Amino acid sequence: MATVRLWTDDEAEKDPAVKAVFDDIRRVRGSDFINNFWRALANDAASLKHTWESLKAIMGGEGALDPLTRELIYIAVSAANGCSYCIHSHTAAAKQKGMTDAQHMHLLAIVGMASETNALVTAMQVPVDREFLVGE
Amino acid sequence: MATVRLWTDDEAEKDPAVKAVFDDIRRVRGSDFINNFWRALANDAASLKHTWESLKAIMGGEGALDPLTRELIYIAVSAANGCSYCIHSHTAAAKQKGMTDAQHMHLLAIVGMASETNALVTAMQVPVDREFLVGE
Amino acid sequence: MATVRLWTDDEAEKDPAVKAVFDDIRRVRGSDFINNFWRALANDAASLKHTWESLKAIMGGEGALDPLTRELIYIAVSAANGCSYCIHSHTAAAKQKGMTDAQHMHLLAIVGMASETNALVTAMQVPVDREFLVGE
Amino acid sequence: MATVRLWTDDEAEKDPAVKAVFDDIRRVRGSDFINNFWRALANDAASLKHTWESLKAIMGGEGALDPLTRELIYIAVSAANGCSYCIHSHTAAAKQKGMTDAQHMHLLAIVGMASETNALVTAMQVPVDREFLVGE
Amino acid sequence: MATVRLWTDDEAEKDPAVKAVFDDIRRVRGSDFINNFWRALANDAASLKHTWESLKAIMGGEGALDPLTRELIYIAVSAANGCSYCIHSHTAAAKQKGMTDAQHMHLLAIVGMASETNALVTAMQVPVDREFLVGE
Amino acid sequence: MATVRLWTDDEAEKDPAVKAVFDDIRRVRGSDFINNFWRALANDAASLKHTWESLKAIMGGEGALDPLTRELIYIAVSAANGCSYCIHSHTAAAKQKGMTDAQHMHLLAIVGMASETNALVTAMQVPVDREFLVGE
Repeated sequence: MATVRLWTDDEAEKDPAVKAVFDDIRRVRGSDFINNFWRALANDAASLKHTWESLKAIMGGEGALDPLTRELIYIAVSAANGCSYCIHSHTAAAKQKGMTDAQHMHLLAIVGMASETNALVTAMQVPVDREFLVGE
Repeated sequence: MATVRLWTDDEAEKDPAVKAVFDDIRRVRGSDFINNFWRALANDAASLKHTWESLKAIMGGEGALDPLTRELIYIAVSAANGCSYCIHSHTAAAKQKGMTDAQHMHLLAIVGMASETNALVTAMQVPVDREFLVGE
Repeated sequence: MATVRLWTDDEAEKDPAVKAVFDDIRRVRGSDFINNFWRALANDAASLKHTWESLKAIMGGEGALDPLTRELIYIAVSAANGCSYCIHSHTAAAKQKGMTDAQHMHLLAIVGMASETNALVTAMQVPVDREFLVGE
Repeated sequence: MATVRLWTDDEAEKDPAVKAVFDDIRRVRGSDFINNFWRALANDAASLKHTWESLKAIMGGEGALDPLTRELIYIAVSAANGCSYCIHSHTAAAKQKGMTDAQHMHLLAIVGMASETNALVTAMQVPVDREFLVGE
Repeated sequence: MATVRLWTDDEAEKDPAVKAVFDDIRRVRGSDFINNFWRALANDAASLKHTWESLKAIMGGEGALDPLTRELIYIAVSAANGCSYCIHSHTAAAKQKGMTDAQHMHLLAIVGMASETNALVTAMQVPVDREFLVGE
Repeated sequence: MATVRLWTDDEAEKDPAVKAVFDDIRRVRGSDFINNFWRALANDAASLKHTWESLKAIMGGEGALDPLTRELIYIAVSAANGCSYCIHSHTAAAKQKGMTDAQHMHLLAIVGMASETNALVTAMQVPVDREFLVGE
């Protein structure tokens, strides 16, 4: 259960600032579904708007990385940060953007491998090679 | 400074198990350079071999994701886990595999954005929407 | 489900060391309610006493920070560490100490923002400015 | 050393989007000093602007929490996330906003205490008390 | 609910690569029980085999540390990383290998204490003493 | 550089509360060396005393786990939490208590392996098997 109230559609209808963001989410996604993250953030209209605008720009707008790659990175970070909700929502988003099972399992193998070497490097306190710093 | 000894090439030459891995790293990479991570892991020949074989398979072998995407994911996990060495080494690897500055900055924006929403979701303890669980 | 047994009041009554701490918790809080954290810690009477004494001193005693600010900091750390139980219990405690919804949402915005810049800084490996070290 | 280039003032002068943010940072802070975080983010003008606008609103604008409390929370999150740069920069900011040594040490005691109980709770997998969920 | 399918025994029977690992798990453990982790990893036969072979060598094979100590370390890391499943499965494994309640509670006290001093050290950015680096 | 002042011996001599702890550290360890962690904590005499008493009881007193095993667990947690100082100081302590190179490398292999499976489990959101909960 959340530590904040999850806004219903009825409540959102009565608050113009929240309604504007909910409407835009529906428009952009072409779906009536508003997931719980936004219903929780609705308690702070400024944060709701700010987060949605950022997400729209970074995950949905034009950019140097294609939409699926963006989702794979999002899942990887969410897994490393242990955010169960985010892993679920962005795995669903990645599947919608065409992630195959083989890509999903490859992603997981990299997340596991990186976490292993991250831990080994940290536990051994390996100094950064000069070669990695050249030209900076 | 590392909490374990970093093996020199001379030491590696005298230990057949370590030498075999160092030789394979050089062969696969087409370069004489062995970075400190492997020189540290050389203290445990079994772990050295196991880690190198895994890395070769997951990061270098055939797979559902292209080589650059794999490095982007590796950087993302390393950043979320706060591994300075790994961020440096895999950012260098990603650049070698063609990562542009624009791709690098887009990656960073996603890592930042995901970390923000991960924290918000966790602090609000948002329950997973039933829609994300459909079909599982 | 916990990986240790949660002590009932009946069990606590029979162990003087545990009973003494449970009694003090009830006295200090002016409530009969003992939450699960203490019932779990009761499996190690020394740890139970030590943790309660620390919490009483740091969160409840006199100090440079007011009681509500202390709870806000506790929630922030618990969110960053991903401790669901702690987020719930300290959000409840903060509300009891007067946290308004607006303060709660402002806290969450800071937790999100800090997590984003933490990740960006780490991923970019930004060196600490000399100005921040002056005089230390 | 950073994994991205740190922009000099000369470079910033030549890029209107970066210059606009650097100018605003100087104006708001009433100081010529631009710290490395912004010089690193300058590689992505959109991210630079977005992050600065967010920080200005959340840390500097009107809000339910006073400016010093905001910095204490920022330090707490940065410590939990292990961001050395952020700990340094926000400890400096908190001192500028009047944080006393006693407040600093109290903050640290809470960060330590919370991290201890977070770990204990997680290791014992303590279930959330129903009492903490009432009314949600 | 998992983000990947959990393989049933029937499905495993039909895939020789998965069946070979499941058979080996049953043989080594002397039990018919296959826990969900392996049923999830079965979606990637290479990862399944690789992870099982590693686990068998590091946790079950000969080595410098006794089997129970290995499990205690595994629990400690899993708690620090916040992996609920891993805490449950390795606490069960430790109990099977003879962990007493007193050892369990001592382990938890160390995990809590270490997390507290880790946080304090990080928040204070304590420089490493030269004495700890001597001889490296 | 630390964000707090590191107390010199001269300063400690003039503060009875700090001096008492420094004297006890020297007595217990049979050495004149006081490492930086305690010199930093000296800024808060109550926290200094509390932390030292806890450490003495948990790491040095009688207990269900032997002294070396305690240090191995401490290193494991410190690595997972990414505390460079703590990894250095407790690796040094473990060596003093007899940790061999083979034990050290086995510890590191477990820390790496656990971090890998922690990440895999989290990314796949594997549900806890009923069997692990039996009897709780």
